[in-house]
Amino acid sequence: MTTLRHPAPLDGASQARSEADTPSSLVMRFGPDHPLVLDSGAKIDNLQIGYQTYGELNADRSNGVLVCHALTGDQHVASVNPVTGKPGWWETMVGPGKPIDTNRFFVICTNVVGGCMGTTGAASTNPATGQPYGLDLPLITIPDMVRAQAMLVDALGIDQLFCVAGGSMGGMQVLQWAAAYPERVFAALPIATGPRHSSQNIAFHEVGRQAIMADPDWHGGRYLSVGASPRKGLAVARMAAHITYMSDEGLHKKFGRNLQDRDKIAFGFDADFQVESYLRHQGLSFVERFDANSYLYVTRAMDYFDLAADHGGRLANAFLGTKTRFCIISFTSDWLFPTTESKAVVRALNAAGASVSFVEVETDRGHDAFLLDEPVMFASVRGFLSSAAAARWQ
Amino acid sequence: MTTLRHPAPLDGASQARSEADTPSSLVMRFGPDHPLVLDSGAKIDNLQIGYQTYGELNADRSNGVLVCHALTGDQHVASVNPVTGKPGWWETMVGPGKPIDTNRFFVICTNVVGGCMGTTGAASTNPATGQPYGLDLPLITIPDMVRAQAMLVDALGIDQLFCVAGGSMGGMQVLQWAAAYPERVFAALPIATGPRHSSQNIAFHEVGRQAIMADPDWHGGRYLSVGASPRKGLAVARMAAHITYMSDEGLHKKFGRNLQDRDKIAFGFDADFQVESYLRHQGLSFVERFDANSYLYVTRAMDYFDLAADHGGRLANAFLGTKTRFCIISFTSDWLFPTTESKAVVRALNAAGASVSFVEVETDRGHDAFLLDEPVMFASVRGFLSSAAAARWQ
Repeated sequence: MTTLRHPAPLDGASQARSEADTPSSLVMRFGPDHPLVLDSGAKIDNLQIGYQTYGELNADRSNGVLVCHALTGDQHVASVNPVTGKPGWWETMVGPGKPIDTNRFFVICTNVVGGCMGTTGAASTNPATGQPYGLDLPLITIPDMVRAQAMLVDALGIDQLFCVAGGSMGGMQVLQWAAAYPERVFAALPIATGPRHSSQNIAFHEVGRQAIMADPDWHGGRYLSVGASPRKGLAVARMAAHITYMSDEGLHKKFGRNLQDRDKIAFGFDADFQVESYLRHQGLSFVERFDANSYLYVTRAMDYFDLAADHGGRLANAFLGTKTRFCIISFTSDWLFPTTESKAVVRALNAAGASVSFVEVETDRGHDAFLLDEPVMFASVRGFLSSAAAARWQ
Repeated sequence: MTTLRHPAPLDGASQARSEADTPSSLVMRFGPDHPLVLDSGAKIDNLQIGYQTYGELNADRSNGVLVCHALTGDQHVASVNPVTGKPGWWETMVGPGKPIDTNRFFVICTNVVGGCMGTTGAASTNPATGQPYGLDLPLITIPDMVRAQAMLVDALGIDQLFCVAGGSMGGMQVLQWAAAYPERVFAALPIATGPRHSSQNIAFHEVGRQAIMADPDWHGGRYLSVGASPRKGLAVARMAAHITYMSDEGLHKKFGRNLQDRDKIAFGFDADFQVESYLRHQGLSFVERFDANSYLYVTRAMDYFDLAADHGGRLANAFLGTKTRFCIISFTSDWLFPTTESKAVVRALNAAGASVSFVEVETDRGHDAFLLDEPVMFASVRGFLSSAAAARWQ
């Protein structure tokens, strides 16, 4: 959590360590003259971005690495999460001596716009009403998230990031960074992601949203104002999503048909199989750390992502003339973002004449593999960054 | 819906065309001296079975074909469903001149125990209290469903069925029939099924059950007694399940990322993509025809099914010495019951020295393919039954 030689913010932004509403995080606040203009045409005034940095920015501000988090992640990528008390979500990847080496790089991680860990989201106070936004927050897109990150990167005085890296929704942000700001991204590392959200993925998100909105404690999105919380709906949403993060094979290996009481089935509706108990735990622990409306907004942002559609229907157009170096990583058992999605990006990058390497990692851990101990992924990231660094600082 | 030469029920059972609670269905009622004894050790008194028959039973009562329905199916396999007004759920397969030819066979289809279309289930009146069972109904298993069907087949005076056929949960019943009553099944036709429910499948069912039980209108299962209905929870459960009935490829082909308003995204939480609207419709129409507690009981029965575990841990033991002829059908894009599950059954049958043919049908329609117009499936069923008939009545 230490930031050494942390750059002072530029004009129009102010920096602070936050208080009650954003525990133990750095916060960048933008004044009313620096609104975030959204794809929907709406704008967010008084934007606040919760973020963390790790390592030291070098003298020419060229060693910045932006790590983008996934759907329910946050800025605490490599330090204890102040809400859960658990280690950062990617400590195996980011830290001193790790593949994204904080002895070498200045790592920045921001909570996305629409999130609930210090960046403006549905639970933030709407300056127009003094009440939590709820559904009055305008809809957010992946390009909006990236635009807000660019404002922060600007405020830190960084022109070009050495690398933008992330998995899943984080990988969508990486692709969007590379497409929208090619000159600001020396190297791009999208993992377990795709250039658009598939029909099936939209369907799973819609189930989760319907579960939340079906909960009477959701109160049409105004639950914070009435002191309620749609815990049950949010837990069901998380349970449904969590299945998609694992693989059939991985679940079978982990749980099979093992019973809680290993001797006999209980003939009831309590968690009889271990997989049920595991899933319930995932649902219940999630509601302790995540805001239900944020879940609506951030899932919607993923649904809307379609990089080809934003570039005349041809994905290669998103990367024409790019000088960014890409490394794409997918996992064999990931059925949320199967390898075919990564290959579509690789093909488009090839068509655009970009520099791209591609690794498909053999694993039975499904989509969540990008968060886990996967030596081939680590070796690939290490090799890619070291070769990119050689090119950058030759 | 006509039953020609319908056999009179044997002692201990009475037959009627049902009234208000079981619209337009035949009903077999068993007296208190004929309880259904369940795997849990409990029993159901005054068992009632809603069923339909099609075609004519021949003189030696040897042409009976029992069709077993899937999770949310019912006895209306080949005639208009009196609740929905829609055609029977397998009219492409069952009827005059169809692969299961009612000009030749006497087709029987029963609503499963625990269901909600005329057979004793959670919405039925508990004779002990005079109130709907709700969660006081004992838990049901696939073997229990089959045991009840055997009581009906007994009451109809049929010793051996020419064939038992069904898809998905219906296929589980077929396998159970063949394992429990090999001498009563001349031919068995399990489609898109498996010998056990996988960890991932249990997980999806658990999400659905949690969605129902999270709905305050569920009232701990007593919603009928208080005049409520957990419609929202049941709709979410159906939506989650429905995704698993299709394939990623099929969804992509059907909906892609098509918008409801084809010009632009709406930046909101209404159904913006066609796949969302489709899924909501599936959820909403389902609650009009299905009882939420039945959904709990019948999903649980599928979860509990594990034919190998019931036979000393070796699937082949379930079929040792069988003379039944089997035809197993799976679909390439079915990820709920993938071909590997069917192959496990084929291997076990081979190990048991049984007669078995196996067809994997190439399709992008996922698990639901067994309900759809799949010419290769129809040709396989026709060929299998005609060869079995030649052997039976040579």
